[in-house]
Amino acid sequence: MVDDNTYIHCLPLLLEMIPGLRHAKIIKIKSGEEHKNINTCIQIWEELEKHHAERSSMLFNLGGGVICDMGGFVASTYKRGMSFIHLPTTLTAMADASIGGKTGVDLNNVKNEIGLFAFPKGIYVYHDFLKTLSERQLLSGFAEMLKHGLIADRDYWDKLTIGDDLENQNLEELINDSIRIKQSIVDDDPWDNGRRNILNFGHTVGHAIESYSLKYDKEPLLHGEAVAIGMVIESYLSHEMKKLSTHDLHLITAEIYSHFNPYPIEIDMLPEIIELMSHDKKNKHNLLKFVLLNRIGEAEWNTTCDEKLIWTAFEYYIHLQHQSI
Amino acid sequence: MVDDNTYIHCLPLLLEMIPGLRHAKIIKIKSGEEHKNINTCIQIWEELEKHHAERSSMLFNLGGGVICDMGGFVASTYKRGMSFIHLPTTLTAMADASIGGKTGVDLNNVKNEIGLFAFPKGIYVYHDFLKTLSERQLLSGFAEMLKHGLIADRDYWDKLTIGDDLENQNLEELINDSIRIKQSIVDDDPWDNGRRNILNFGHTVGHAIESYSLKYDKEPLLHGEAVAIGMVIESYLSHEMKKLSTHDLHLITAEIYSHFNPYPIEIDMLPEIIELMSHDKKNKHNLLKFVLLNRIGEAEWNTTCDEKLIWTAFEYYIHLQHQSI
Repeated sequence: MVDDNTYIHCLPLLLEMIPGLRHAKIIKIKSGEEHKNINTCIQIWEELEKHHAERSSMLFNLGGGVICDMGGFVASTYKRGMSFIHLPTTLTAMADASIGGKTGVDLNNVKNEIGLFAFPKGIYVYHDFLKTLSERQLLSGFAEMLKHGLIADRDYWDKLTIGDDLENQNLEELINDSIRIKQSIVDDDPWDNGRRNILNFGHTVGHAIESYSLKYDKEPLLHGEAVAIGMVIESYLSHEMKKLSTHDLHLITAEIYSHFNPYPIEIDMLPEIIELMSHDKKNKHNLLKFVLLNRIGEAEWNTTCDEKLIWTAFEYYIHLQHQSI
Repeated sequence: MVDDNTYIHCLPLLLEMIPGLRHAKIIKIKSGEEHKNINTCIQIWEELEKHHAERSSMLFNLGGGVICDMGGFVASTYKRGMSFIHLPTTLTAMADASIGGKTGVDLNNVKNEIGLFAFPKGIYVYHDFLKTLSERQLLSGFAEMLKHGLIADRDYWDKLTIGDDLENQNLEELINDSIRIKQSIVDDDPWDNGRRNILNFGHTVGHAIESYSLKYDKEPLLHGEAVAIGMVIESYLSHEMKKLSTHDLHLITAEIYSHFNPYPIEIDMLPEIIELMSHDKKNKHNLLKFVLLNRIGEAEWNTTCDEKLIWTAFEYYIHLQHQSI
């Protein structure tokens, strides 16, 4: 399974590396988060059927987070489960999305509303695919790597933020670190009933902004770009509700601002964004729950914030846009 | 979750028995196998979202096989898995469909093409619901109970076939026997990689006939009615390919004919029915595989039959319609 982009840029590389795949049937879908929905799943299920895929067949997901999330879901629900392998092609997918067994698609702009836990038979990371990515795509993945440092590993955060140019860093080593951190959190709590929640840092706000952008923007935010905004806003909440120091808050804000352009959030967008947040899977009994930081490298899950404080946190982000930091 | 029928006939009974459920939100879908598809799932997922169902919510599936199969699928893929409980209301669902963790929906007339293994938190069998069923619905369930005898328990088959009137039998005891037989087969092989396959007796042919009927008939066959036809045809194959005696073949044929009206299969329908059989999930490498009987009470899975013999077996069924047995 490929999308328009990986069909052109990655499939030829893959077939060169693994000639045995040359006779595989190709299922091609449209690129982009806006196609990560159940209608695309129906198209893929129908193509699997057309190609006479069986329970004993194998689906190779060649692509970014969308392809891995959706391919895992489609495979594990086709004839009650065929096997699949992830071949992540983006930095986001290599360092984050392909790890941990979460699969799913969006429903009416609510992110990952339909899905399940299903583990691939294998995940193969070919760093050569990174050369096919734009700077913007690399940065989107970098946001999730920053997150891994923020929630679980101060040393890794320092390593990530020591240089100011992503391209000068040893990405292969950093990807391995991210995989190690994420896998260790997943191993502690594979079904997401406890500590695994900390991986959601930046995502309660980030998912809502991503959904909003997907609905209204001609060129929607990438996932990591939305998460980067979410991490700034949730770091502000961490400063107010938890022990995150002013110094750490400014460090995080400055680091993210040095990589990501500000997104033009206006006050009158907040009611809709906050409504979107209430659909987050982590919310119990319709309270808004957040993962917050005690310091860089240590997170806590399951903190309730009242709506007034959430507004203030968005205002913090909005005001940043009008000053240089 | 209810359908048009269980909303009227079973929900009032249930709320009388379990008053605690009176404040539950109701999701109602249209009755019938023709609505067991991904579009109905989308409707249910959207209603769950509308009612702010959370991962910690519980879906009660009040209905027959369609409601149990589809409800289990929808619940276990909503927000990566909410819990569900089966409240089977038909004989088919009580004695067979609700047991064993298979969930799923049809795709383009291919039965259960999309689904997964997911186990309910509980299954509660209230025999009072049986009084809401027509004779035809009871018989459809009886077909699966006959199957349990044929594949695994000669004594149970004898018990089932000793009377000639279903209503005079102790159904509650027979249901318990069927649940015990099915559960023991499922426990041996929960993920359907081996012996569990024997539960598919009658279904390779039965599913194809059911799909065909769903596509062309104004009043389609019930699942058990199609399986009953499948069991006659696959018993003929068992006689030709395995050790099933002529005596046992005639016993099975006569028992099924005494309960079920003949279905008007014509020779020119066979190419399409056989094509539908090739979509069966149990087929590897596009060969047609069958579960066949060595005798009443003992089945073998994974026998390949060639297409010519399959035609002859259908002809056996067709000729039966033109004679009294």
